[in-house]
Amino acid sequence: MEAQQRTPPSAAIEALRARLGDRLLTGESVRAEHGRDESWHPPELPDAVAMVESTAEVVDAVRLCAEHELPVIPFGTGTSLEGQLLACRGGLSLDVSRMNRVLELNAEDLDVRVQPGVTREALNTWLRDSGLFFPVDPGADASLGGMVATRASGTNAVRYGTMRENVLGLEVVLADGRVVHTGGRARKSAAGYDLTRLFVGSEGTLGVITEINLRLFGRPEATSAAVVSFPDVASAVNVVIETIQSGVPVARIELLDDLQMQAVNRYSELDYVEAPTLFLEFHGSTAGVDEQVREVEALCRDHGGGAFQWAVEQAERSRLWQARHDAYYAALALRPGCKGWTTDVCVPISRLAECIADTRRDLDASPLLAPMVGHVGDGNFHTLLLVDPDVPEELDEARRLNDRMVERALALGGTCTGEHGIGLGKLGYLREEHGEGVEVMRAIKQALDPRGLMNPGKLVGGD
Amino acid sequence: MEAQQRTPPSAAIEALRARLGDRLLTGESVRAEHGRDESWHPPELPDAVAMVESTAEVVDAVRLCAEHELPVIPFGTGTSLEGQLLACRGGLSLDVSRMNRVLELNAEDLDVRVQPGVTREALNTWLRDSGLFFPVDPGADASLGGMVATRASGTNAVRYGTMRENVLGLEVVLADGRVVHTGGRARKSAAGYDLTRLFVGSEGTLGVITEINLRLFGRPEATSAAVVSFPDVASAVNVVIETIQSGVPVARIELLDDLQMQAVNRYSELDYVEAPTLFLEFHGSTAGVDEQVREVEALCRDHGGGAFQWAVEQAERSRLWQARHDAYYAALALRPGCKGWTTDVCVPISRLAECIADTRRDLDASPLLAPMVGHVGDGNFHTLLLVDPDVPEELDEARRLNDRMVERALALGGTCTGEHGIGLGKLGYLREEHGEGVEVMRAIKQALDPRGLMNPGKLVGGD
Repeated sequence: MEAQQRTPPSAAIEALRARLGDRLLTGESVRAEHGRDESWHPPELPDAVAMVESTAEVVDAVRLCAEHELPVIPFGTGTSLEGQLLACRGGLSLDVSRMNRVLELNAEDLDVRVQPGVTREALNTWLRDSGLFFPVDPGADASLGGMVATRASGTNAVRYGTMRENVLGLEVVLADGRVVHTGGRARKSAAGYDLTRLFVGSEGTLGVITEINLRLFGRPEATSAAVVSFPDVASAVNVVIETIQSGVPVARIELLDDLQMQAVNRYSELDYVEAPTLFLEFHGSTAGVDEQVREVEALCRDHGGGAFQWAVEQAERSRLWQARHDAYYAALALRPGCKGWTTDVCVPISRLAECIADTRRDLDASPLLAPMVGHVGDGNFHTLLLVDPDVPEELDEARRLNDRMVERALALGGTCTGEHGIGLGKLGYLREEHGEGVEVMRAIKQALDPRGLMNPGKLVGGD
Repeated sequence: MEAQQRTPPSAAIEALRARLGDRLLTGESVRAEHGRDESWHPPELPDAVAMVESTAEVVDAVRLCAEHELPVIPFGTGTSLEGQLLACRGGLSLDVSRMNRVLELNAEDLDVRVQPGVTREALNTWLRDSGLFFPVDPGADASLGGMVATRASGTNAVRYGTMRENVLGLEVVLADGRVVHTGGRARKSAAGYDLTRLFVGSEGTLGVITEINLRLFGRPEATSAAVVSFPDVASAVNVVIETIQSGVPVARIELLDDLQMQAVNRYSELDYVEAPTLFLEFHGSTAGVDEQVREVEALCRDHGGGAFQWAVEQAERSRLWQARHDAYYAALALRPGCKGWTTDVCVPISRLAECIADTRRDLDASPLLAPMVGHVGDGNFHTLLLVDPDVPEELDEARRLNDRMVERALALGGTCTGEHGIGLGKLGYLREEHGEGVEVMRAIKQALDPRGLMNPGKLVGGD
């Protein structure tokens, strides 16, 4: 229906091709690559893909799309999980992956300006000799533009914050092609509405991010990582809760359940104990790290934790965290050919043990395989429901489990999504969580994108 | 002119009185108390003052004002500095100071829910036996609602962040009387646009804040405070820069120049060295504080700092910080009967020494007395220009100095206001700093307050 109300995209595509030449792509395979993400959501292909290389090209592409009423869907690395990239109303996939330059490092001020196609690993490689690093780490080697748009967080957020805390400013191309600069390089400002935070987490629905100022951190003097297993999930979770409550500035504290540990061992050829396990990392001065380790070791002992398996050298630590990062792919490999339906609730830390235990009971009673991993220091955890998307009963069962998890999280004062966003997958939950607040979001969307062309159908839904 | 377009306020006032009884006040003196702030801005009186006691009363008052097209100006403690509280178009001053209950403490989750009239000192007194505290401290014993609205920060922000980082969620009454709840109790969320951050710093122009969820922190095991003086401002600033760059998690690092130290000694009957001085505070474990102190002492020695004057006991520390907090009143007392015109720029830390040195040169060449204090760990500092508001030449001179400081800060990548906000005083600078971004702010204002009744004329200006 939507498509019939639009000018046929052929005119739009001709206009875009005239501007972008052979960087305007319409082949089936490239459109298929851009009309999907890493979730179970069935692909929906865009009409065309633009491989843009500059803000000026983004401006022109957005203006031409506005003229022809063609939807615009910004695309980074394609690693989102709630259908954010699907062209559910056709349109142009605006691929910023070639906008991948680091523009300006201010080492003394601990900040950096990048284009949106720079990935987090590319940035950290680029920073290697500076003594600085960018901590936000959602697992996937996502583009920083995508991480801004999704308000990503991940393993380090418990200490360093999420993208909400680590974006200093943005350049954004609005729906009508205007370019705005938000925030700045000062560490704080009370100058007007916080537009930076409005665009962080806006999932491409308010504009296209074309530059990002990020906070950096000095590499810690000492870093230690360890793995420790527990007799049951509750014991591991209680260690996490007490660690956070006692204010230990742990850098990473991640939970993997027994099934997930099995998957990790098999996928990464490792031989960890296949029991509920915490992956830990400590950053600080040498004395500070020692102090943190002593406190957390004591808590682990109190809750029946096994011996710490240490990784102090960089290479060992990388191996340990690579295993953690591959958890998603390791889990998928438990059932070849399946897709992952990832849940993403986040609750106040005092309710985490109860929330995880009740979830575990649901999963144990379900026919679906569902390993569990979590950024538990933030109260955030994922279960990966392994489904065959061609079997409707499996999708129904996954939906039922996800519904129950979200209901439970909301009842406990939590949120339906800690870090994956709303996309298409959580539209209904957004209203449950924020009620009248969704009308405020829609009013803002209407004010900034009156024709509804920026990633339509996502986050605030359709008309 | 504005007043003539409105229904005469008498009808509105009658309607409000019918709802609020004798808590709707129209006496000259109470209106005078509410039509001013702590700045040099000449008072502008509201038509009436409502002493509201509940969200329901705020809803009704806002609805009645909407019906009668009467502006609404939320009022907490009256400590703002850029004219935010002045009734420049008449209207109702909505005084929330009686909404002063702490509603819910979740000690295990380190959060608390309060009404907007609770002041930061009242909250910390209430929390005394909990082992927790709320760190944001702008100096004045401001209401937490006002601190949210102004995106306040102050002395502890270098370690604990500003109101931007420490508000978890809000209840807000919108211009049409709808009540929305933003954020939640989870530590992070990717559920939709960040409405919480949109209202933090909105200066009453988007709605009335009626409840606030705040982050709390565990009281540190060890706290130490010290005062150390320097031969010149540049040396003190260089210590600050190196402290921040080396990642020492100092809790407070405040600069007072020699003139400000004179004022403090005289006002608080103290005998500090009257030279550029840093006020420092360290929080952490006993070992951690020792380590921080050693690092900062070494930096101070490198830059010619004198001996540390320590304050370890609570009573001594309170005296030290009371002197710092009284700096504003101490400075005013340098020139009895004067008003203070407070500047508030904030720059990237690497440009701070240059920014302060150039500012000092301007001040030395000016006939106005102007002591300087700063939250220098954030790159933020204030000069207090002591003016007789009845002498236009003095206001012109203050304006000239302020203009130059803002121009300089913007040229250095900074902001026109680190923590005092835009109000009436910085409307022109907002446009200089954010350009087209101001149009985005105005679009949002228009979307949420189409009739322009919420604190009109402030932040985004008039029509």
